[in-house]
Amino acid sequence: MPTEVIFGRGTEDKVGREIKKLGSRVLLHFGSGSIKKSGLYDRVVASLNAASVEFVELGGVKPNPRLSLVQKGIQICREEKLDCILAIGGGSVIDSAKAIGVGVPYEGDVWEFYEQKAEPASMLPLGVVLTIPAAGSEASVSSVVTKEEGDLKLAINYEILRPRFAIMNPELTFTLPPFQTAAGAADIMSHILERYFTNVDHVDLTDRLCEATLQTVIHNAPIALAEPENYDARAEIMWASTLAHNDLLSTGRVGDWATHMIEHELSALYDVTHGAGLSVVFPAWMTHTYKHDLDRFVQFAVRVWRVEQDFEEPERTALEGIARLKQFWRSIGLPVTLSELGVPDDRLEEMAKRAVGFGKLGSFVPIGKREALAILKLAG
Amino acid sequence: MPTEVIFGRGTEDKVGREIKKLGSRVLLHFGSGSIKKSGLYDRVVASLNAASVEFVELGGVKPNPRLSLVQKGIQICREEKLDCILAIGGGSVIDSAKAIGVGVPYEGDVWEFYEQKAEPASMLPLGVVLTIPAAGSEASVSSVVTKEEGDLKLAINYEILRPRFAIMNPELTFTLPPFQTAAGAADIMSHILERYFTNVDHVDLTDRLCEATLQTVIHNAPIALAEPENYDARAEIMWASTLAHNDLLSTGRVGDWATHMIEHELSALYDVTHGAGLSVVFPAWMTHTYKHDLDRFVQFAVRVWRVEQDFEEPERTALEGIARLKQFWRSIGLPVTLSELGVPDDRLEEMAKRAVGFGKLGSFVPIGKREALAILKLAG
Repeated sequence: MPTEVIFGRGTEDKVGREIKKLGSRVLLHFGSGSIKKSGLYDRVVASLNAASVEFVELGGVKPNPRLSLVQKGIQICREEKLDCILAIGGGSVIDSAKAIGVGVPYEGDVWEFYEQKAEPASMLPLGVVLTIPAAGSEASVSSVVTKEEGDLKLAINYEILRPRFAIMNPELTFTLPPFQTAAGAADIMSHILERYFTNVDHVDLTDRLCEATLQTVIHNAPIALAEPENYDARAEIMWASTLAHNDLLSTGRVGDWATHMIEHELSALYDVTHGAGLSVVFPAWMTHTYKHDLDRFVQFAVRVWRVEQDFEEPERTALEGIARLKQFWRSIGLPVTLSELGVPDDRLEEMAKRAVGFGKLGSFVPIGKREALAILKLAG
Repeated sequence: MPTEVIFGRGTEDKVGREIKKLGSRVLLHFGSGSIKKSGLYDRVVASLNAASVEFVELGGVKPNPRLSLVQKGIQICREEKLDCILAIGGGSVIDSAKAIGVGVPYEGDVWEFYEQKAEPASMLPLGVVLTIPAAGSEASVSSVVTKEEGDLKLAINYEILRPRFAIMNPELTFTLPPFQTAAGAADIMSHILERYFTNVDHVDLTDRLCEATLQTVIHNAPIALAEPENYDARAEIMWASTLAHNDLLSTGRVGDWATHMIEHELSALYDVTHGAGLSVVFPAWMTHTYKHDLDRFVQFAVRVWRVEQDFEEPERTALEGIARLKQFWRSIGLPVTLSELGVPDDRLEEMAKRAVGFGKLGSFVPIGKREALAILKLAG
């Protein structure tokens, strides 16, 4: 992992020194005004000033970050001759910053990358101050952006997208609302589950590392919800968010990602929180696919949830594992059905069709339109 | 981890292309003639020739690599104006290559680094073709070298020591003798155990990743011994060797390392295999220290060995964990006492004194001369 992680209390005060290694004119990219209310903005600006770094601001990133703001950011970087980006926020802000970063040096429209019509060759160097542990974008190769026109939510994955550094102070997550904390946990767990259900045999070490990271989130998310200022629980979740998506946990295997693609359609049409969409779709996907590899679902139940194994009827064990996952997500306040998520059932066909717009989904079990619809109905 | 890992069957054929990124005149560093017998040497040379890379050879690295050969390597690099190093072998060859790499640009004697009289500022870039999964040197910050005069075995640890790339083909380990396979497993496990027994609280994710990696080695080492050409088992062990020592498993904590320091004295005086020395010293160190943090030893027993927890008498559980470790190492053909290792008991005092030559050892429990002697006696 080439991203340098700077982890611990008060580490945001080092941001000026770190960003100066990447450039001298910075785009400061962030979301809503919450970083101003919390005082984080002031501390970052003080650190930038102390390091004599010049910067131009672009706030206003929304969850499910929008292409229009990305294009505005590209324009600003070009006009102001900015040479690096500092993202302060969670996955949406970082993904938006990555899109700006690959867009600036590209002559065409940055959306061509997301439509798979072109590949980015370079990116403005990016640093991160992480405030929401969830997407893992702080060290990942991914960026997901939504184009308002046509409600298109698409992802790109390239090595050059990894941030150069990520400043991670668990204290910055003390004020996260409970729902954001829970949705973040579901996002982290989903990143692991997408990698866990694979057709590649004999990836024992990666399996066990996946199970270890899942158990850490399962153990610590309820603690963080009960005690929002518990540094240790917040720290475990924050580090898990990075390891869940920096590709350590895909070593030697092929991930699935059908669930993410189906969830992207939920987010695109209904602008739901990504983690809450995942907590609805994942159990449905599991129920749809578990017979494909019963042993793997038994392993999931026994090793992650410590389900007492039923050797006579392994299917019971597999189903109990899925049930435990649903119970856990519900216990931390997340929806596990479309109706709990507030999504009506009148556009399921449309979502299923859109989800397979670039072809069948998944690798564990191929998911076409018919299967995507079945999964959405199971989520109902 | 900045080291690029190139993993899988036949990957050694890519070595010419990879080393060319580091330089054009290479020191080819290796151990005994086994790589010539196996045909690996020929395949590497063919790949170097195909990439038009010039090289000078320096073979003859022995286990517990010697300073005299390091100094010869430094001289060759300077005279032949070599600009990078390719190490083909296990930890000894890689550690020797690291020592040569930091010695070439340094005006003084490279041994000064090991004596902590100077710090290396730069290193010739180093690539690795790994043939023995054990030391984890292929991605670590460490190098251990023995100075023949005075039987001094000393270690250095610097970020700049990490190899640029590591080519890891599990097939290359099919022909390892059973004792080397077993000693490698003990070395890997010891790297994790040194990190596991820490006084830092609340490092849950790192704990679980440690336990996962230990379980992988425990599961796969007997398979590799029973079926030397089992690719999957060999692959699990090889990847575990890297993760055990690239510092992922020390995230957020302080390691102990007293056992390694005591073992270095065994190796220095009796030239024993490092992993076999560790399988003798570690259980003794554990028996000496377990009362310092009974809970942690109970966790080790329950989570790693699945010992049935005795809630009434937790000490039984802790001791059972240590017993299981000894049983396991004995079951794969390793010594667990000094006499099994062939080390007499007439120089224990001397070893204890030498071990604390730079001050007290360890961080979990401080180990002075008296404690080091007690541990060596427990190992008797």
